[in-house]
Order: sequence, then structure tokens, then C-alpha cells
Amino acid sequence: MTVPDEITTPDVMIDVEVLDRNIARMASATRSRGVKLRPHAKTHKVLEVAAKQLAAGAVGLTVATIGEAEVFAKDGVEDIFIAYPLWVGVRQAERLRRLAETARITVGVDSAESAIYMGTNLGADAGKIAVRVELDSGHHRSGVHPGSAVAVALAAADAGLDVTGVFTFPGHSYKPGMPRLAAGEEDAVLRQAAEALTSAGFTLLELSGGSTPTALLTGKTAATELRPGVYVFGDAQQLELERCSPEDIALTVASTVVSHHKTGPDEPGRFIIDAGSKILGSDRAPWATGYGRLLDYPAARIIALSEHHATVQWPAGAVLPERGQRLRVIPNHVCLTMNLVDEVSLVKSGTFSGTWAVAARGRNS
Amino acid sequence: MTVPDEITTPDVMIDVEVLDRNIARMASATRSRGVKLRPHAKTHKVLEVAAKQLAAGAVGLTVATIGEAEVFAKDGVEDIFIAYPLWVGVRQAERLRRLAETARITVGVDSAESAIYMGTNLGADAGKIAVRVELDSGHHRSGVHPGSAVAVALAAADAGLDVTGVFTFPGHSYKPGMPRLAAGEEDAVLRQAAEALTSAGFTLLELSGGSTPTALLTGKTAATELRPGVYVFGDAQQLELERCSPEDIALTVASTVVSHHKTGPDEPGRFIIDAGSKILGSDRAPWATGYGRLLDYPAARIIALSEHHATVQWPAGAVLPERGQRLRVIPNHVCLTMNLVDEVSLVKSGTFSGTWAVAARGRNS
Repeated sequence: MTVPDEITTPDVMIDVEVLDRNIARMASATRSRGVKLRPHAKTHKVLEVAAKQLAAGAVGLTVATIGEAEVFAKDGVEDIFIAYPLWVGVRQAERLRRLAETARITVGVDSAESAIYMGTNLGADAGKIAVRVELDSGHHRSGVHPGSAVAVALAAADAGLDVTGVFTFPGHSYKPGMPRLAAGEEDAVLRQAAEALTSAGFTLLELSGGSTPTALLTGKTAATELRPGVYVFGDAQQLELERCSPEDIALTVASTVVSHHKTGPDEPGRFIIDAGSKILGSDRAPWATGYGRLLDYPAARIIALSEHHATVQWPAGAVLPERGQRLRVIPNHVCLTMNLVDEVSLVKSGTFSGTWAVAARGRNS
Repeated sequence: MTVPDEITTPDVMIDVEVLDRNIARMASATRSRGVKLRPHAKTHKVLEVAAKQLAAGAVGLTVATIGEAEVFAKDGVEDIFIAYPLWVGVRQAERLRRLAETARITVGVDSAESAIYMGTNLGADAGKIAVRVELDSGHHRSGVHPGSAVAVALAAADAGLDVTGVFTFPGHSYKPGMPRLAAGEEDAVLRQAAEALTSAGFTLLELSGGSTPTALLTGKTAATELRPGVYVFGDAQQLELERCSPEDIALTVASTVVSHHKTGPDEPGRFIIDAGSKILGSDRAPWATGYGRLLDYPAARIIALSEHHATVQWPAGAVLPERGQRLRVIPNHVCLTMNLVDEVSLVKSGTFSGTWAVAARGRNS
């Protein structure tokens, strides 16, 4: 597929047919595993994509911030989980209160201190906010060990909050060979925490887990709900982790070759495209082969990235693309790309078909 | 300084007094070296900051894209250099034509092909656009070797464009120990290209160079104009390259401690703050000590970064900050941070004093 003429590079381009297929596949996969799907909307931040996910059977949305929740709640989404250990001061409490007027709002908590602080600031409204205790399943970011979950849950209940479950993010699944191992660890901590909390008298509704690399694995899981995000678009990380195929890539950054370097006939060729870190994002895992991939040229590598330049290394001996040629780049981490643009271009069967606003872009707080 | 109460974290916070001092220092340094200053506005993207730079004597602005030029030209800036080897199709030509109605517009060119294409699409208006030939001074991104500058300049002149100089970006100055070496190489290519072009009959007005790491070096330079950008705010890269001091840091990301990890008494402590890659940006040079620095805690290191979490390693034995404590983070690369927010908060003498819009945010094309 070429980049439609209507698109000025660099620009984010979404193949709506591939997107629809990805949404349907994850909906069907989670249904057949008997788990609920609560997709993470921080990946796309687009109202139209959220609507497609909900229409396909998602029970609600996951978001990372109160600001993101506000955008989707305003659009009518009625069940939102802010999967983050929020520190809820007076202002955050007021915003949560307002959100709870139209939506069922759940937030993360990973310490007695933050539960007590949140409960105090919510005051009489504490019971309107559901909380889930965050568990560390091996990613070692936020979250507690399952053995500490009871203490946090008791503090939250004492603070008047409605404890409705636990959650974890197996972020250590983002390494070659790790998805199945991380899924096993996720399973174990969810199971352990559920047992401990049940023994302590809690009635747990949801055990929430899941990342894109682990969500499509088959087999039994202790989770009752999964929260993958990236699956809607795919990206170079998922591709290099073999969690998706080139046909599953729904989002690319349309770019133009702007500059060539002359190298010897036996050396790999190098050229510059106009998509840099200000549209691709600059995440690069230690195991990544570069700063993104070229969808139509699997052997090409992006070896350097500036704000508006990507340096592409071309296979030795192959003819370099002409200046002016338009190439589709797959970003390493699509959540960062979507957070860099206010609008995306849509393509259907290779034809430009409109734009979507990235409604929750930049809602960091 | 603490984070003023008006600020909800994470948020970009600018100390206007430090900013003013940085702008005055660079203006004075370039004046005393006898070179013009054309600051790169891609760093800040803010109309008010550009106005301060121009008031302090800058001859005009540098930008990276036509979209950025449009934002500043609309605000009345009359001299803008798009320091990028643009591939100018029919639509870009129309936009350049419109820009040239109110501003003196200069663009970069680094091949005969792109000069001819630009000239063809500008048609009768080609003479209204000034071009500078881009040189490679060792960064090996775009730009030609000085020996090829004449061929590009001749093609541009043949295409009807007004050749008014050369430019280079010594991006390889961004490494410990490299600024002076890179400045020397910049000097050499500017000199060589100037000689070659003068011999070929060109009257060169400007030899443009400069990056923040090289601009404040003392000594003679062949450059007639410098284009530093980052100096207005400073960032962790400049700090670790010893190109600025903590007192020169005008921009920080206000953050809150949201989660603690328990570690043994002799191990370094770890905690999580709510500023991640979606506000700090995820650039990390191989020589960087982490994903940013904490302004008030020089011994702390940001050892991991997710979209909304930074994992901070605290010195062994030191008391961890409490949950809820607000800390100021210095991003590694401030140009990415400014491109992530629509608005910044201003602080004067520690007091909140309003906001600025990031008017050119996201103008990638």
C-alpha cells in the first residue's frame, strides 16, 4: 500500500480495516477464555476507537489518569478503571466525585497511606469510589506483594472505600521469551492475593491482569479480566516479540525520504526520512533492532533518531529509495506515538477516509 | 524551592527568572563573539519565549518544520529559517509562498534533486525563498560534505532559488568531551564550504552553525550566526555534559511520589513518581546516568521509565521521601518535554504566576 496523496508527511495513518480486525480478534480471544476485556485506552486516546471496543463487548475502559477518565466519561463511557496508584488530594478527590456522578469509577491503590489519604479527601463520598489493590507480579514498578495485599485492602475498607478486586501489570512480559513466564507469574500473584483476601473476609469481584503480549496466550488464567492496550494497533515491539504479524499493524507513520548519504557499493545504504522522535517517540528496548521498523521493507533498520530525522540503514547492495519516496514506519511503542499527535488520518482499502481527534492526548494528570 | 500549590502533578513548570537569565546570557555571549543569534524555537514552541529572544537581540528564529514557521509568522515574526532539508511538493510550496508574504523565509537544501523539485513547485515564486546548503560537520545525519556544496548551490540557483548561505548542526557535540572537538569540525566545514562557494561566484551572507553545547564556547568561529535551542531551559543532558549548572535549569517537571518499594536497610531505596515518558520524553543517550535527574537531589537516579511512572533510585541509607512529596524532575531532553504538553505553568520567585500555551506543539509537518 502506498501513502494516499491527501496525507502530508510525517503523519499518523490508521488502517481502519486492520484496526477492526484486531479489536474483533481480542474480543473473541478473551470471550473464549472466559475473561472480561477492559482495554487500556491510554494506547489510542480516541473516542471512536473506544466505542468500537465497547461495541465488541468490552466491559468498560482502563485509563492511566483522571484526565483520561474525564475525556471518556464525558463521551458517555460508564465504567472506567484508573489503573494507577493515585495520590488523591483535595482536587483529585473533587474530580473523582464528579466522575462518579455519571460513571462507575475504580482506582488503584498500593499502600495503606494512599488509601487513607484518598478516603480522607473523599470524605462522605469515599464509598462511591471502588478500589483495587495493585500487585507486583515481577515488573517491580508499583504494586505490593500478594502477602501485603490484605493490609492495604483493610486500610482502604477502613477509609470507607469499596474494595472490589486486585490488579497487576506484568510489564516484564516485554522481553523476548518472557510473555509466557510473565503470564505465569501474573497468574500466581492474582491467585495468592485472592486467597489471602478471601480468607480475610473480602468478596472479590475482579482479578485483573493482562498486557498485549500475555493476553492472547491460551490456557487457563486466574484473571477474571484483562487490560491489553497495544493490540488495537500493534507496533514494532509487538512485532519483534512475535506477538503480532505485519498484517496486524494498523498504525504507521507516513514519512518521506528527504536526504541520501553516499556510501560505497558494498556498504549498507543510508538515508533520512522526515519522521523523528517527535512523532515516533524514542522508546527503544535493549533488545529492539532499532527505533521502529519499515512496514514494507522488513530488512531496513532505523539506526538513529533525532526530533525530525530518522536515519535508515538499507540492506547492502539494495537500491536506495528515491528522495521524495513515501515510506510507512511502524513505531516501536505506539502509545507514545498517539500521544504526540492531535489528529490521525484514516485509510480504508488504501484510500484516505477522514480523520479522528486524539481526544485524550496529553491528559497526564 | 517547593512546587507551588496551584500545580497539579505531573506538570511542566518554568522558572521565568532563570529563563530570562539564560536568554540574556546567550544573547550577550554571541554578541561578544561577534556572531548573530538565531535561536531554535523547536525547543520551546512558545510565542512568549520567542518574543523574549527577539527582544534580547536575536536576528530571527530557527524552526524545524513549515508548521512551526506558520505559528511564529502568524504571531508577527519576520525572519524565519526552516533548518531542515525540506522535500517541497505542491502543497509545501503553497505554504512557503504564503509564509513569504509576511516573513523572510529561508529553507535548508542538501541535494540538487531537492533544490530542483522545490524550484519547480515554487515556479515563478522560487526567488522569494532563500536557501542555505546543509553541510555535514560530523554528525552524519543530513547535509553534504563541503566539497559537494557547490553542486547543490548551483542547482538551487539554476532552479531560481536565492542561495544565501550554508548551515550545519554539530549534533555529535552531544557526548562527554565532544563539544570543543565538534565545534572545531563545524568551523572547518563552514570555512571550506565558504571558500568553495565564494570561488564559484556565490556571495555568501551567512555561515550558520551552533548547538547549545558549542555555542557558549569561547574563541573565534567561522560562523556568522549560531542556532542554539536548549539553552533557554537547560536539561539533564546539558547538565551531564557540563554545559549548564543546576542554577541554569529553568524547566522542571513537577511530580508526586505515589508508591514505595521496601528494600533492605543497606540497599538503595526505590520509589515511583507520577512523571513518565508521556511528559519527560524517553530520550536516553548511552552516556546518560538515567532518564532525567532530580533537581533537588543530585544523587538520585531515574533507573526506569514507563508512560506514567518513573522509578527513582535513592542513595543507600538515605531516608526515602514520603508518599505525596512533590519533587522536581529535570528531563533528559527538554525539546521532547515541551512537545508533550499544550500548556506550561510559570513560577516567579517560587510563586505560581500563570501559564503559557505551547503554541507550536505537535507541528510536525
